[in-house]
Amino acid sequence: MRRDHVSTTVFVLAMLALTWGSASAADQALLTQAQALFKPLPKVMESPENPVTPEKVALGRLLFFETRVSLDGTVGCVRCHQPFLSATDALPKAIGALGRLNPRNAPTVMNAALQFVAHWRGDRKNVEDQAMQALVGPPSFGNPDYASAMAKLKAIPGYPELFAKAFPNEKEPVTQENWAKAIGAYERTLVTPSPLDAYLAGNATALSPAQEAGLREFVQTGCTTCHNGVGIGGGMYQKFGLVEEYWKATGSPEPDKGRFDVTKNPADMYVFKVPSLRNVAMTPPYFHDGSVATLPEAVRVMARVQLGRMVTDEQVNRIVTFLDSLTGKLPASFTEVPELPAAAFRPPAGK
Amino acid sequence: MRRDHVSTTVFVLAMLALTWGSASAADQALLTQAQALFKPLPKVMESPENPVTPEKVALGRLLFFETRVSLDGTVGCVRCHQPFLSATDALPKAIGALGRLNPRNAPTVMNAALQFVAHWRGDRKNVEDQAMQALVGPPSFGNPDYASAMAKLKAIPGYPELFAKAFPNEKEPVTQENWAKAIGAYERTLVTPSPLDAYLAGNATALSPAQEAGLREFVQTGCTTCHNGVGIGGGMYQKFGLVEEYWKATGSPEPDKGRFDVTKNPADMYVFKVPSLRNVAMTPPYFHDGSVATLPEAVRVMARVQLGRMVTDEQVNRIVTFLDSLTGKLPASFTEVPELPAAAFRPPAGK
Repeated sequence: MRRDHVSTTVFVLAMLALTWGSASAADQALLTQAQALFKPLPKVMESPENPVTPEKVALGRLLFFETRVSLDGTVGCVRCHQPFLSATDALPKAIGALGRLNPRNAPTVMNAALQFVAHWRGDRKNVEDQAMQALVGPPSFGNPDYASAMAKLKAIPGYPELFAKAFPNEKEPVTQENWAKAIGAYERTLVTPSPLDAYLAGNATALSPAQEAGLREFVQTGCTTCHNGVGIGGGMYQKFGLVEEYWKATGSPEPDKGRFDVTKNPADMYVFKVPSLRNVAMTPPYFHDGSVATLPEAVRVMARVQLGRMVTDEQVNRIVTFLDSLTGKLPASFTEVPELPAAAFRPPAGK
Repeated sequence: MRRDHVSTTVFVLAMLALTWGSASAADQALLTQAQALFKPLPKVMESPENPVTPEKVALGRLLFFETRVSLDGTVGCVRCHQPFLSATDALPKAIGALGRLNPRNAPTVMNAALQFVAHWRGDRKNVEDQAMQALVGPPSFGNPDYASAMAKLKAIPGYPELFAKAFPNEKEPVTQENWAKAIGAYERTLVTPSPLDAYLAGNATALSPAQEAGLREFVQTGCTTCHNGVGIGGGMYQKFGLVEEYWKATGSPEPDKGRFDVTKNPADMYVFKVPSLRNVAMTPPYFHDGSVATLPEAVRVMARVQLGRMVTDEQVNRIVTFLDSLTGKLPASFTEVPELPAAAFRPPAGK
């Protein structure tokens, strides 16, 4: 009896050790898998075409919050990328100058420079291109042309000097290209490191056990087919509705043909940029048209129309719990808003 | 010769001492006069009807930045009171939900609770009343009624709990009255102590000699007839255009009858609240209709239409230099914007 008891104890301990060992091995395998699928955030999202300098960043930060440059004086980058709403406007579709409705949802600018192109349909090359074209987009800043936008900037005491500092040796530094470079440089500093980044750096306990389970579910469900890389998305185009027409699941009022309207290539029908999932828990509503209000519903829609899977509530909850690990702290240079140059006000053009 | 020389030296020194003494006496007299005319800012602008509690202030700070409660989702208090523009929108007249134009200019909310009434025509009792009525003002938040505004707040996870904390022992704390009290409590903490406050506290060197000269000019010109007290204005009504019709000087496109339209009393024709001059250098454009773009021009207009004086450029410059001493640092609770509760987004009513 006593020997039996001892051998039973030894057996149980051995089993526990094996289980523990295998759990550790499984955890390590998950981390290794995650490191192969994703990448941690850089400190700055560099661009060879627009080197990030302190002077450009300082100017770009002011310009990001500058509303006086818009047609009606109410729109700046900040209009759709509000510091208090995780750099979104929480609207299905953004509203610009003169109350004009944008065709699509405004995503967060946090980590946006990671993406391989800008805008849902990829019709902006990068954050700089986006910032420049927004100046004259009718439902955006709404200016009739670049010249009138630049005239407004030049009229605000302080800006010409700041442009000259950020772009030395240029005769006329207040240009739409430099506006774009300054804002782009600022946006390239807007990174939000999250628990997943600590995890990818090798800290296996940076994710909670529930988040690890969610990560497993995320991988097994197939989400990483598209949502991978440093942005957990933002690295490719994909057809929205691979398995079934997306608007049947999202309840979108009307189908958006996506990239087809840009390229006229039939292969681009319903094709959109795969969005980055960083901070996704903080940035409802979801999809290019903001048609889905909550993250669990967005996960359900994606599993159904992209992967042909009807996921259970439990699976959805696990994935949502993992997605929480993509939420990072907003940088102080964004939530501590700068004071803009006081202006001798000139009524904006067009009013 | 030598005695003459000595006595000359003594005479010159005596004269210098007298001048110095009289300068000091004049400076002291100016400080005493200023202390009789103005008052330094309190730490908090208390209200017996709405005691300022940390819980109300914390909630009110979130609500101040909350845009999801408006008709089109773009308007919060912050729309017209932007942290990066000294709590103004830098527009002649504010633009609200659906791009609707307000009838008058939006003043800064810094130190606004000091004023004896709110709004240019005094048709809002205080900052709380202003915050409440803005919810349903068509060119403001634009909600059709209070109930729909409150329904949107209740639908954002986090707010019901915060209201319950700020207004304990209330069965239904999410009400427009409590919205107003919370925002009011927050606004009652938004004070911007300036060099003039340090001066009034007895620090005679807090104003530069040029600012002291400007203060003398400000008093001698007669500005303190109306711009006095803790707000350097904000304490009384006054007819705009005492000496001459104001719109001839401001170039206003059309006369605004001011308080007459509120009371229908002929004595109130062209009567407006005297605005506070705190932070006036940072808050162009000027007057109830934002018709004047620069501070020097605003000073010139006031001297002419209120006091019948054609002031010189030198006098204007002196007064403007004094007005600079009314600029104070914006509080961190305003420039460090809070992160709002993440919401399961519900499309706003009316869309």
